[in-house]
Amino acid sequence: MNINAISKPHERLAAILSDEMAAVNELIRIRMASEHAPRIPEVTAHLVEAGGKRLRPMLTLAAAKLFDYAGEHHIRLAATVEFIHTATLLHDDVVDESAQRRGRPTANLLWDNKSSVLVGDYLFSRSFQLMVETGSLRVLDILANASATIAEGEVLQMTAATDLATDESVYLQVVRGKTAALFSAATEVGGVIAGATDEQVKALFDYGDALGIAFQIADDLLDYQGDSKATGKNVGDDFRERKLTLPVIKAVAQARDEERAFWGRTIEKGRQQEGDLEEALALMAKYGTLEATRADANAWAAKAKASLDLLPDHEIRTLLRGLADYVVARLN
Amino acid sequence: MNINAISKPHERLAAILSDEMAAVNELIRIRMASEHAPRIPEVTAHLVEAGGKRLRPMLTLAAAKLFDYAGEHHIRLAATVEFIHTATLLHDDVVDESAQRRGRPTANLLWDNKSSVLVGDYLFSRSFQLMVETGSLRVLDILANASATIAEGEVLQMTAATDLATDESVYLQVVRGKTAALFSAATEVGGVIAGATDEQVKALFDYGDALGIAFQIADDLLDYQGDSKATGKNVGDDFRERKLTLPVIKAVAQARDEERAFWGRTIEKGRQQEGDLEEALALMAKYGTLEATRADANAWAAKAKASLDLLPDHEIRTLLRGLADYVVARLN
Repeated sequence: MNINAISKPHERLAAILSDEMAAVNELIRIRMASEHAPRIPEVTAHLVEAGGKRLRPMLTLAAAKLFDYAGEHHIRLAATVEFIHTATLLHDDVVDESAQRRGRPTANLLWDNKSSVLVGDYLFSRSFQLMVETGSLRVLDILANASATIAEGEVLQMTAATDLATDESVYLQVVRGKTAALFSAATEVGGVIAGATDEQVKALFDYGDALGIAFQIADDLLDYQGDSKATGKNVGDDFRERKLTLPVIKAVAQARDEERAFWGRTIEKGRQQEGDLEEALALMAKYGTLEATRADANAWAAKAKASLDLLPDHEIRTLLRGLADYVVARLN
Repeated sequence: MNINAISKPHERLAAILSDEMAAVNELIRIRMASEHAPRIPEVTAHLVEAGGKRLRPMLTLAAAKLFDYAGEHHIRLAATVEFIHTATLLHDDVVDESAQRRGRPTANLLWDNKSSVLVGDYLFSRSFQLMVETGSLRVLDILANASATIAEGEVLQMTAATDLATDESVYLQVVRGKTAALFSAATEVGGVIAGATDEQVKALFDYGDALGIAFQIADDLLDYQGDSKATGKNVGDDFRERKLTLPVIKAVAQARDEERAFWGRTIEKGRQQEGDLEEALALMAKYGTLEATRADANAWAAKAKASLDLLPDHEIRTLLRGLADYVVARLN
């Protein structure tokens, strides 16, 4: 395969890291097995094999490769990160009462909420074992703090999502919890295990943090302006599910009294009727909040790219820069 | 307070360890706080303040004190163990759809399943941060393995509880997961942090393991023979909830065809009718399974006491011996 012929940055990264990713997938397969409880691999295989872009483990492998790391702990850490991500998805589906994930029925629908809760816990404990095997207290510290940020962000989202008082700073904190904390931990631990300096580790954190925020803002924006064929989501799902995301938060911040009443009725109280989505889109257009949200996503992607300046000049660095562009390219 | 005037071993242990337990409670209070998500301390306070005997953190403090440990990490580890226990209870209540815990409505009833799942995750991540602060990879290894055993045991219980093929070895594994793994990790890490030798750490593991098994077998037996005023449970709750515990497993193992059909209908299929509990009790009496279960609990308690022989001759050791007696004293 000619890697230069591949145009999408995450696909080029995947191609360059394909041997390592194969090792990660094999480790995931081995460690999600359970001699005693066959329900565990059934549930996780359903989710893990459904695919997804494996973006998070790839970030860990890429960060280690930036420093030409020659050991094997980055494989463990990449699997750790994917296990944490999968565990979070299992618990999220229980919390959101979701019926679909990656185009397939969710585990809580195929089995039950119990299985999703307990198998999620099992994956967390497996990720914990994997990271302990690296013997790096610094890595453990980073992942412990990321876990706390993720869990706190999830609880915050649960209470803040339908509350009109949720402003951009609360939104940012939720986004850090639900997305950016694992992105930044993924890049950080890859650098730490490869012996990066403190300054470089900080740059890796900044890259993962900004990339994760750009990624999530883009996702939230696509919910209102996306092509449902390309995204697999229907326009306005977040509105119907009463989730306060950035385009709406910006509209609420500028709302006149009767507009505020509209958001109160549809989002806070959840009393939606025919035509409300169109009205919501009209209010977002009135205040240009989709454009403003796109500008925010672009700014975070630019910040991610700038963070890379402190890292070694390396083919991987070029691809990570391209990845930041790619995350927002779907918007522009 | 005259400690010698207190007759129950866990109350004497609590009295001797009261300064340390106060420090543990204070640390729990500080670490369960969340600046951003007030739902978190609301839910955990409900559960933590409801009491319980705080047996697990006490085991960690006692193990450290056996070696006259003079540091502060045992406080962190005791809080870690209680956080893991509390997180497990929150998730268990979702899985069991419980309405009551320690005589109060469960968190999933007062708030919702979402809160129980996510706050449980938050407590796990907080426990993880606390144990990383001890800087001991050996402690992290023990707790990572215990977490995996707990999670695997919970999944196993979910699928094995109503399956008549569940034998004593599967039961033991479930019991290790749901109870003994955290007891033994609690005693082990107390010893490790206090500098115990490998042989002593092994003895601490054996003590916690056997104590936890004795404790759980006693609990399961009391469900069938207990005084509901003293236990706060009704006789036969496990039967009505179709949980295969040791007294029934022993009866199933000796069942004749028509008896096996009875267990199949009531436990596997869950089609229970008036008079079934009485019939179940009659079958257990026929094969003497309550007595056999009591003998097993006593044997595990004796094993726990014997493990202590390898540990320093110390007031705490005498109390730990008494604790093993106490756990089964309710049966005899």
